[in-house]
This record gives sequence, C-alpha cells and structure tokens, in this order.
Amino acid sequence: MPLTDLDGSIVAPRLPHGLDTPEVVVDLDRVDANIARMQALLDNRGVALRPHAKTHKSPFFARRQLAAGAVGMTVAVLGEAEVLADGGAEDVFVAYPVWAVGEKARRLRALAGRVQLSVGVDSVEGAAQLGRALAGAADRPEVLIEVDSGEGRTGTSPDRVAEVARAVADARLPLAGVFTHGGHAYRGPERVSGAARDEQSTLAAALAALDAADFEVRVVSAGSTPTAVDASAQPITEERPGTYVFGDRQQVNLRGSDPATVALAVAATVVSTAVPGGCVLDAGAKALAKDKPGWLDGHGVIPALPGATITSVYDHHAVVSLPDDLPPPAVGDVVAVVPNHVCPVVNLTDELVVTRDGAAVQRVPVAARGRTS
Amino acid sequence: MPLTDLDGSIVAPRLPHGLDTPEVVVDLDRVDANIARMQALLDNRGVALRPHAKTHKSPFFARRQLAAGAVGMTVAVLGEAEVLADGGAEDVFVAYPVWAVGEKARRLRALAGRVQLSVGVDSVEGAAQLGRALAGAADRPEVLIEVDSGEGRTGTSPDRVAEVARAVADARLPLAGVFTHGGHAYRGPERVSGAARDEQSTLAAALAALDAADFEVRVVSAGSTPTAVDASAQPITEERPGTYVFGDRQQVNLRGSDPATVALAVAATVVSTAVPGGCVLDAGAKALAKDKPGWLDGHGVIPALPGATITSVYDHHAVVSLPDDLPPPAVGDVVAVVPNHVCPVVNLTDELVVTRDGAAVQRVPVAARGRTS
Repeated sequence: MPLTDLDGSIVAPRLPHGLDTPEVVVDLDRVDANIARMQALLDNRGVALRPHAKTHKSPFFARRQLAAGAVGMTVAVLGEAEVLADGGAEDVFVAYPVWAVGEKARRLRALAGRVQLSVGVDSVEGAAQLGRALAGAADRPEVLIEVDSGEGRTGTSPDRVAEVARAVADARLPLAGVFTHGGHAYRGPERVSGAARDEQSTLAAALAALDAADFEVRVVSAGSTPTAVDASAQPITEERPGTYVFGDRQQVNLRGSDPATVALAVAATVVSTAVPGGCVLDAGAKALAKDKPGWLDGHGVIPALPGATITSVYDHHAVVSLPDDLPPPAVGDVVAVVPNHVCPVVNLTDELVVTRDGAAVQRVPVAARGRTS
Repeated sequence: MPLTDLDGSIVAPRLPHGLDTPEVVVDLDRVDANIARMQALLDNRGVALRPHAKTHKSPFFARRQLAAGAVGMTVAVLGEAEVLADGGAEDVFVAYPVWAVGEKARRLRALAGRVQLSVGVDSVEGAAQLGRALAGAADRPEVLIEVDSGEGRTGTSPDRVAEVARAVADARLPLAGVFTHGGHAYRGPERVSGAARDEQSTLAAALAALDAADFEVRVVSAGSTPTAVDASAQPITEERPGTYVFGDRQQVNLRGSDPATVALAVAATVVSTAVPGGCVLDAGAKALAKDKPGWLDGHGVIPALPGATITSVYDHHAVVSLPDDLPPPAVGDVVAVVPNHVCPVVNLTDELVVTRDGAAVQRVPVAARGRTS
C-alpha cells in the first residue's frame, strides 16, 4: 500500500544539531502559529476555545494557549488538572466520566479548592457518586453531562440526558452543560464532516431534552481537532481540540491541513542498514508509540526519505522499508519522523527539545507525563 | 473473532483494595517463581541467563534476577544501563547496534568505567565509530556482533560477520562473541520452534565463519522469552529473555505457558456503561499501550469478564465489548486487565504496586522509564 499524497507534502520541523537521539523536537514558531490560527478561527465564530492538554501535558504550552485567548483548559484525568493547577491554570474541565471514590474523591475535593473546576458525568450512578464524594465540600465543581454523538465510547444518549441531569441535581451539584466528542472523525478523512454534524445534532437534541425537563445550561461543548475546524457554531458554545497545538501525520491526512504546520518530530538515528532493502532507526515504539489507524500505512512519515515506510516498530527499533529508487541513508544519518498521532508520543518522553529557527532554545518538561489517573 | 482458549485460562494477579486506578499491579510471589523457573531451566542446560531489563526497567527486579543466578543484565539503550549501574549492576550488555557519537559517545565511555560493559554492533561503520568514540579510553567495552536469524530487523548475515569482526579488530576493541534475537517467534505460536532453530543455526553459521577467519569468541548469545524456553543449548552459551519476569497474554498464547504465572495486571475501573453492549475502563492506551499482534484479538484480556473483548483503546479509555450472556459489570467495578505485551505497559507508569498474597507491600519505581536513548 503506498503512502498518501499528503504524506509527501509534509515538511518536518528542522532538527537542531547534537541531539542524543531519539529526542522529541518541537518548533515553537509553528506551535505559536497553530495556537493563533485555532484561536482566530473560533473567535470568528464566537465559540470559546478550551484546549485539551493531553497533547502537550505541560503548563508551558497551556500558558501560551491561555495567553492567546483560551477560556480554560480541558484534561482527561485529575493528574493532568493537578499539574496544570501547579502551573497556574485557573479553570479546568475534566472531560471524563470521573468515578470519584477513595483517593480520587480526596483529590477531586482538593482540586475544587484550587481551580474553577468542572467535571464530566454520563450516568446516574456517576452523578450520585460525585455527590457522595463532594458532600460537605466547601468548593463544588460544576458538572457537564457527556452525550455520545456516534463515537460509541462514553456518553449517554439524548433521551436519557434529563435522567442524568436529575441525578446531578439530586447530588446537589451545579449543572453547567453538556459535552460530546466526535471521535469517529478519526476513522478516516471521509468521516470528519459527518462527525462534526453529529456533534451538533446530538448536542442540539440533548439541549432540547434538557429544556423539556426544565434544565437550563450554559455550556455546549464539542471537540476534537478535526471537527473543531469543520464545525459551524450552532448550538456549540465551546470547542476542546488538543492535537492542533502540534499537529501530526494523522491530522494532515484527515483535514488536508497545511503540511508545513506540523510542529513536532521525533529525531532518530539510522543505526543499521544490515538487512537489505531498508534501514533501522533508533526511535521505536517507546518513542513513536504504536498508533496506526487502518487508513494510514506505516508508523509515521520520514520527509527526508520520500516513499519510505516504517513497516514495524519494536520497543527501540523502527524498521523502514525503502523504495528501490531512493539512495539508502547511511548508518549514523539523523532524520525527523513525523508521528501518526502526537499525543502518545509526548506521553513517552520526559522532556521536549524546543526550537526557534531550527536551533534548540530550551528543554520543556512534559510535566504531566505518567499521570494516568 | 473469538478470544483464544488460552485467554480463558489466564488467572490474573489479585488486586489489592483502595487502588487509584489505573495502576499497574505486580504479584511478587509470581515474579520470584518466574525468575526461579527460568534460571533452573537454563541451569539444567548449562546456559547462562542474562535477562533483558527492558521489561521491568528497574534495579529492584534486576537484583532479584542476579541473586537467583543471572550472570549479568541485558539492555537496549545506554539509559537503562546507567540506571542499572546506579542500582548496583556490575555486568551489562547493550544488545543494540550502538551508534556512538556526541553525547552518546561520552556516556558510553563513562559507563565503561563503571561496569563490565559489552555492546552490540552489526556493521563495519558501527565498529569504526565505536573505535573513534572509545579511542584513548581507559576502559573499553567488549563487542558482540549481531547476526540476523530471520527477524529481518538488525544484524548482519553470517557471510559478512568476519568482515565486521575485522572492523572490530581494526577499532582495537575486544571481540567477545555473536548474538541474535529470534523475534520472529512473536509472529505467532506456530513460529516459535522455528525461530528457536533459526537462532541456533544462524549462530552456528556465524561461528563457523568467524572460525574460518581465525576469530575466536567466547559468547554465543540468543534470546527472547519464547525461544529461550524452546531452544536446546548447542551452540548457545547465553540466553537474554526479558518478558518471562512478568509474563503477559502474548506469552501465554505463544508458549502455552502456565496461565497462573502472569505476574502483572493493570487495575482499571469501569467508568461508563452508557453505550449499550459494553463498558468502558479507565485504562486506555496510556496504560495498556497499543501492542496487538495480528494473531490476537483485542487489547488485553479481562479474566473477571470471560469472553469480553477490549475492542479499542483511546488515550484514557478502553472500550469493552461484552458477550450477550455475561452479566454486565457496574460503573465503579474494578477489574484486572492482563496486557497483550507487558514491556510497553511498564514503560508508561512511574511506579508499580507490588503485592504479596494479594496485599500491596511496596511501590517500586520504574527507574529507567523514559530512558529512550
């Protein structure tokens, strides 16, 4: 299976010299441009931007998003919220059906005292448990109900949303809104527009159901980078894209976005050419991760080796198949790999090498790396 | 596609109470039994055991392997060797074609002064670069030449091994031996015996070629958990299995090993049952990783939910499809997930919850987590 036409157009960030590969390199000029572009897009629609921090897991980038106009941050786990709070974030939404028992209940109460906190819920049981966890707490998070718009992962259905809203009220928690994630956009480029429409229609149906049951909400939140770009506003008040901050191969191919906006690459060294027909890089699954949608061939793209395919990744090896007409690289060559999906890549490294004009200017810790709960 | 018969027999380690899921739980009694079993197997064959540390990335477990009789440790990257040296290891083999420039050359020289170090090489260029990196160094590592026994990843061919040996001699480095990795065993249960035979025959051919060119070597090293179990000794002097220390779903299915030997599980909470037909766990790709060989269905196995399949994993969600006849779990239930491949799972967490008799006794840091270079 050939690589896509769009792969061939991807321009990797320039790598600084002297890297101890594999290392993850981030072009800060491109990051700032990506942040400004998404902010302007949503500003023009009158939709708030609440970026998902799971992509960068770092207050360094969150601060740039907030300074550019984001209303707050989104996270998946309490650990990310804790790290963002440490870094100065004041408004955090945990877009996840939090099950608040034991240590997690204690952490939730502590967080609610530190930031303007909101949390997700998608069931009567989850709402009741939140109520128990927060009983008597001085600071109570707002709650958003998750509805499923076709991804089939989490989220109740619009016809059950009022039942969950009643459970939230019974738990004496403030109901702020509804949210969804049109993650089925990631099933292929042909799914993006439909997923964006599904988000809108599902949220509209949920709003109607809540209205019929006399619940009023303020926030109507959708999100994912591909659908945020495609969606029109109505009835959405807020978008939660994450990946746009760095971009990746998947986003270029999903959205046909400008392939010179990809801000992150994994620098890798060719460590072997011993097996004929290919070469092996020192960035394996523990650097590139293993995310590979069925509609993309290979485990990332190597712009310096046009037509090359990363056919398999082992923990510390990437096996690259080279086209016959390409002069093979030499052992010791350093190349940039643009990963398929950037989020798990960042989660595998302790630090990012941040560059300006192709030169390393600082190392930024991935402060929430490893915060899985 | 149904799960395998062997999946149904896997007995997960018991989970302690009060976990803040997802957490990675390790049954130390099973670990010690796994270490003792592999050591006895190789002792009986007169083959040295040099366990690969990439599975546990931790001096805590390395010390137990060494105390049980291992002759030294194997690693893939210098960072793992540095952490093992910090933890007291005295003999470490970097089973990887190290390309020693810049910072890596400096680290290599430092390591050679701290431990009995040996490194891999699979090319004339790599040997020459090692020579340049170590020129004038007081402590010089021994070198082992990697040969490819059918995995098609790294390793020269037996008919070029003498050429690489001459380059090692030209670089004024001591040649200790040859090594291979029959990783094609992982392509399916039917490949294991063949891969073990391939390791033996390829190493024998490499030895013959070296002998014909008047090179004498001491170490003939093969390895991978499935082939270490299957291989007979001749001409192998050393095995480098890693995964056996914890075991995983893949090993049970590859080798038909005792399914009550799996020592590691990811504890996960059911956070949603909102979408009909299944449930969602809070251990996603950032806890379970995404390793899924084509011959196994799903992203791990859940012994408490017989017949359930983890159909997809997102960063913080695992979507589970439940068989019609299984009573569905409730939101809040905690289950043990036995991962497909244990190595990347350990690499995603900062700490392991170590248990004895089902009770947590200590938290062990994954000290070399994130050491990708």
